[in-house]
Amino acid sequence: MTVRSLGDRLDLCSINTATLGHKDPIERVIDEVARRGFGGICPWRCDLEGRDVGAVARRIRDAGLAVSGYCRSTYLPALAAEAFEANVEDNLRAIDQAAELSAACFVMVVGSLPPGSRDLARARSQVAEGAARMLDHARKAGVRLALEPLHPMYANDRSCLNTIAQALDLADAIEPFGTRLPDLGLALDVYHVWWDPALSEAIARAGAARRIFAFHVCDWLAPTRDFLTDRGMMGDGVVDIAAIRALVEAAGYQGQVEVEIFSDRDWWTRAPGETLAVCAERLMSVC
Amino acid sequence: MTVRSLGDRLDLCSINTATLGHKDPIERVIDEVARRGFGGICPWRCDLEGRDVGAVARRIRDAGLAVSGYCRSTYLPALAAEAFEANVEDNLRAIDQAAELSAACFVMVVGSLPPGSRDLARARSQVAEGAARMLDHARKAGVRLALEPLHPMYANDRSCLNTIAQALDLADAIEPFGTRLPDLGLALDVYHVWWDPALSEAIARAGAARRIFAFHVCDWLAPTRDFLTDRGMMGDGVVDIAAIRALVEAAGYQGQVEVEIFSDRDWWTRAPGETLAVCAERLMSVC
Repeated sequence: MTVRSLGDRLDLCSINTATLGHKDPIERVIDEVARRGFGGICPWRCDLEGRDVGAVARRIRDAGLAVSGYCRSTYLPALAAEAFEANVEDNLRAIDQAAELSAACFVMVVGSLPPGSRDLARARSQVAEGAARMLDHARKAGVRLALEPLHPMYANDRSCLNTIAQALDLADAIEPFGTRLPDLGLALDVYHVWWDPALSEAIARAGAARRIFAFHVCDWLAPTRDFLTDRGMMGDGVVDIAAIRALVEAAGYQGQVEVEIFSDRDWWTRAPGETLAVCAERLMSVC
Repeated sequence: MTVRSLGDRLDLCSINTATLGHKDPIERVIDEVARRGFGGICPWRCDLEGRDVGAVARRIRDAGLAVSGYCRSTYLPALAAEAFEANVEDNLRAIDQAAELSAACFVMVVGSLPPGSRDLARARSQVAEGAARMLDHARKAGVRLALEPLHPMYANDRSCLNTIAQALDLADAIEPFGTRLPDLGLALDVYHVWWDPALSEAIARAGAARRIFAFHVCDWLAPTRDFLTDRGMMGDGVVDIAAIRALVEAAGYQGQVEVEIFSDRDWWTRAPGETLAVCAERLMSVC
């Protein structure tokens, strides 16, 4: 596989709506993202609250945008059985929305220790059970599920899946390799995986298994001042994004390159148009 | 191997001087740590600045304390060859101090990307070269080197060694398994490794290779408010410390259990005597 050039190819690129801070209504974001030449968008559930999902889906389609993903799952682990059940059910409803949006995948941020727990093994076991049940539903709905391994600094709350290898092990266990293409795969985000000493092997394995469903870019700032909302614009940090994209595309990924930046100190304070313009420039110059 | 009980066994426990915030002179810290019944201490280089190292070593010995480690190496990677050379040289001098202190090991926090670099592979390669040169010197000095894998949230600056498996791979490469006991091993800190999905296998491998030279405890607070100085007292966070100690001791480790807490918002603001008293209580009750 060859690595694609992104120069003048914003049609290969997508904007995750979190990058704009969820300030504007989704309709305006769709129009602006399309107007600037991006090829895709990844909306969040909060963008659709109080909306007719079918109408939003039509507006995205009419704007000529692909839906590179739909963000994101409710955390699965819980102390009480009823709470776990409610988390799974909530995710099934979100999968139906992902289907209506024709999203390339439903992104799973799986959660980790419920407050009061130190039992990582139990959290991981609940994630496995919940993901298996979600996969049954997703297949009927025609939706692919993308497990997103999160940086280990989120291991206590946001995700007990913290490496590509671990997420692949889980996917292999739930959906063994077979004759059909996988419906359970991974969303790879450079922010979460760039440090991994086994990165190239892990990406190659994910690609060989046909399990790379999404690829997200942003940058790791040095120093980083907040655990959640201090992600950097591509090129402003220490990640060799082009090298990681080369690995991902050499492994067979041909989907959209999606920008997802959480930045309450910088990019969320700017006008969406300015942020989108810089995203476009950096996608073409440093990614 | 059986897991030791720490109840009434503070003699198995050590205090890393960083836990007290480096506020008092090392002589006073030595006396206070000994008076409270701990069996060991791990000083930092900054504690010995302007001191006669031999005199400090005698004071520690006279107080009946073991030296569970000596903290820590200067970061190895650098952009310029002369700067790299200076980093190695500085570490050789520190190894001589570790020898004078009869430290159980010299703790290596290896560093990562020099400012301006995105080249993790080069940083790792410099770490390998630097560690090999340090090992030659350490053997002559009778000092063991303990590579400390640091949490991946430090991958950009403090350490490009981020998992136990990665540190073991490096140790195996530099010092292949032979007939003598290893002089290059690991310092395992629950703060850095607790999230690892391969934790039990990695600890077992480290033990089988006789490479566990130190074991550090503290806790991961939820939420954590600072990347460096918001570590928790054992029991105040989400880490199942007793379970990890059981793995480490089942793998053959019989050295000291060392408390290392960086906490500018909490424990560093308290009187050293209070912090030491709580360390003692928590070592016996939750570790």
